Amino acid sequence: MPDSKDINKYIEGLGSSSKKASRTLVNLKTEIKNSAIGFMADEINFRKKEILKANGQDLSEASKKGISDVLIDRLELNNERIDSILLGLSRIKELPDPVGEITLLPPTPSGIRVSQMRVPLGVVGIIYESRPNVTVDASALCLKAGNACILKGGAESIKSNIELIKCIKAGLSKADIPEDSINLIETVDRKAVNNLLSLDNYIDLIIPRGGRNLVELINNSTNISVLKHLDGICHVFVDKKADLAKARSIVINAKTYRYGICGSMETLLVHEDVASQFLPEISSKFQAKGVELRGCSKTTKIIKVKKTSDEDWTTEYLAPILSIKIVETLHKAVDHINEFGSSHSDSIVTDDETRAKHFINKVDSASVMHNLPTCWADGFEYGLGAEIGISTDKLHARGPVGLKGLTSQKYIVEGDGELRGVK
Amino acid sequence: MPDSKDINKYIEGLGSSSKKASRTLVNLKTEIKNSAIGFMADEINFRKKEILKANGQDLSEASKKGISDVLIDRLELNNERIDSILLGLSRIKELPDPVGEITLLPPTPSGIRVSQMRVPLGVVGIIYESRPNVTVDASALCLKAGNACILKGGAESIKSNIELIKCIKAGLSKADIPEDSINLIETVDRKAVNNLLSLDNYIDLIIPRGGRNLVELINNSTNISVLKHLDGICHVFVDKKADLAKARSIVINAKTYRYGICGSMETLLVHEDVASQFLPEISSKFQAKGVELRGCSKTTKIIKVKKTSDEDWTTEYLAPILSIKIVETLHKAVDHINEFGSSHSDSIVTDDETRAKHFINKVDSASVMHNLPTCWADGFEYGLGAEIGISTDKLHARGPVGLKGLTSQKYIVEGDGELRGVK
Repeated sequence: MPDSKDINKYIEGLGSSSKKASRTLVNLKTEIKNSAIGFMADEINFRKKEILKANGQDLSEASKKGISDVLIDRLELNNERIDSILLGLSRIKELPDPVGEITLLPPTPSGIRVSQMRVPLGVVGIIYESRPNVTVDASALCLKAGNACILKGGAESIKSNIELIKCIKAGLSKADIPEDSINLIETVDRKAVNNLLSLDNYIDLIIPRGGRNLVELINNSTNISVLKHLDGICHVFVDKKADLAKARSIVINAKTYRYGICGSMETLLVHEDVASQFLPEISSKFQAKGVELRGCSKTTKIIKVKKTSDEDWTTEYLAPILSIKIVETLHKAVDHINEFGSSHSDSIVTDDETRAKHFINKVDSASVMHNLPTCWADGFEYGLGAEIGISTDKLHARGPVGLKGLTSQKYIVEGDGELRGVK
Repeated sequence: MPDSKDINKYIEGLGSSSKKASRTLVNLKTEIKNSAIGFMADEINFRKKEILKANGQDLSEASKKGISDVLIDRLELNNERIDSILLGLSRIKELPDPVGEITLLPPTPSGIRVSQMRVPLGVVGIIYESRPNVTVDASALCLKAGNACILKGGAESIKSNIELIKCIKAGLSKADIPEDSINLIETVDRKAVNNLLSLDNYIDLIIPRGGRNLVELINNSTNISVLKHLDGICHVFVDKKADLAKARSIVINAKTYRYGICGSMETLLVHEDVASQFLPEISSKFQAKGVELRGCSKTTKIIKVKKTSDEDWTTEYLAPILSIKIVETLHKAVDHINEFGSSHSDSIVTDDETRAKHFINKVDSASVMHNLPTCWADGFEYGLGAEIGISTDKLHARGPVGLKGLTSQKYIVEGDGELRGVK
């Protein structure tokens, strides 16, 4: 680990060696990348004891510092979680390699031949919190897409991460891939992040994995492109044409599958024609699960709940709290979502295809759903194999981001000496 | 035109009304968008006299201010240039509409059905210099892709732009599209740009059309995504397996088609096996065209030219100057381009397919070319129909950007009440 005064030089060195390694990765055969991922899994399996020991040290230091139970839980590794890391690696190994895919473009006015080739981005910087599994996941996903990566994990997980990166680098080395293809920032000095964010000549994309504050802070501190994942203020709209039994289970699942995920429903919209039937039914269900309900003034006339404030419509609770609004029309539901939502994931429950289509066309969100709970928003569930994050941006990648979001395209232009502007 | 003190409010108002209009544009039928573009052309044709009169006023004010001939030339409209604007509109009208295109994704683990729909970005802000044709081009391209746009043209062209926006809005209005779909900032107050760049709640993408300084200044002053077009330091590599007659015409065209475009060749790389034959031939050709040659020390031993400084390899001359370097191998040519180039457009001249393929795979540029001059780098020439700009970024859109670069995709997720985590 470097001295604090040398941090700048250390991070700059990681940037430059990662960029150099990335040039080797560009055209690496899929088999070689897959074999490296296999070797990483072997190494992790083989060094399980050392990894768990290092993780134990991280855990005991974290408890000494009085870190919250939620954070401790995220930090903890055990046999089961290591198995799940290994399963993740084998899944990434099986994913199709997007790199090198060629798309032919239509004939051009001059006859020169134009196509597009899918290529890696180059170097990806990943800044995350305390989950050590991200170290392995993110490494394998970046490698599979042909990118070098620089990892900056949370300070609490430093010892676990150092053990894991040993396995990762051993895997690279066994497959004859430069070890600098995957680098971990092995210091807990906070200056390291700022140094990393200044390397716009080496790094092509920054992926922050953490809460809104982390993402905004990073986005405001760098000129490098950032895969932004901000709020998930997700809605389910129960239409007047909904099958109410189906709506009930969808709505309960959308809120209670897991409170802390970004796809969790935060606001329930109910068409006024069905509100007096639907709301009492679900109100008792939610109360049984310990979910606090808040409602608009019309809602409070049907069920006994706290009145919402204006703030409720724009709050991502990530907690057992739900705001409810009664709307007069499908249009008003769409307007509410487009105005107060965060363009993450929003769903309509209806048996009327025309109304579903209107909702799908008009709601401006990364995922628009029909007859499903919003908690499905996830790269693995969408069939992407795995996800490196969920983007709330419209540029480059939107919604769950898989391997393709870690690539770019370049134009290939071929001819036989055609000249421009010369007949 | 608003008072200076009201600029903030004025720009905020444009942002908010543009956002509102953009919601209407999302699912607008292609025929309606096309009819608006047709009506715009009719209006411009009908009001040609007024447009040329306003342009004359802009021109005379510009001359009074002693503005350079180059700028005056850019600013000038005449019958021929208006015809070319009208031709541009008819081409945009003919382009296929990318919006609404559906891509089915493979089956998912749970059976929920996932697809992606191409959708507009929302609101695009376009900041450009003095060419009034950009006002029309950019408006039509944004509209065709379903986006609202806010235009900020150069101060010198304000009167021309105000005439043109009248025609544009009349065209929108005749097609029953909200006039706020296309807004022009009708003030020359410099504060307007900063206000525009702060509207990250209304604007989805900023496209600066101008030199590197403008682009960097804008990129550093906003949290909104910017379509970055920085340097075009383009190379042609004449390989030892090149047809030298073909190479000669390619190299001359790459430099002299137009000096001021970003695809113009700035550095010529020549394989050492053919340098002593090739360089004297082209040297006399370039001298006849008034192009100043500079060369590496090996070059200076073959032809009589000024020695290059380190700076030459990273300079975008945009002028009749060319730096020449002799390289020992194909690998060294690739390394030079990846180290000193700007990842814009680079070409190899060779009759050896294996060597061409190596170059295409290894050069990390938006456009890699084979047996072509780099000056082909252009959206229209690539068959995109038109271009809104050329991106030197790897994220979102790379190289010439057509209609597709003005769109995003959203996930559509459909099911029949499937619940997550519930068997």
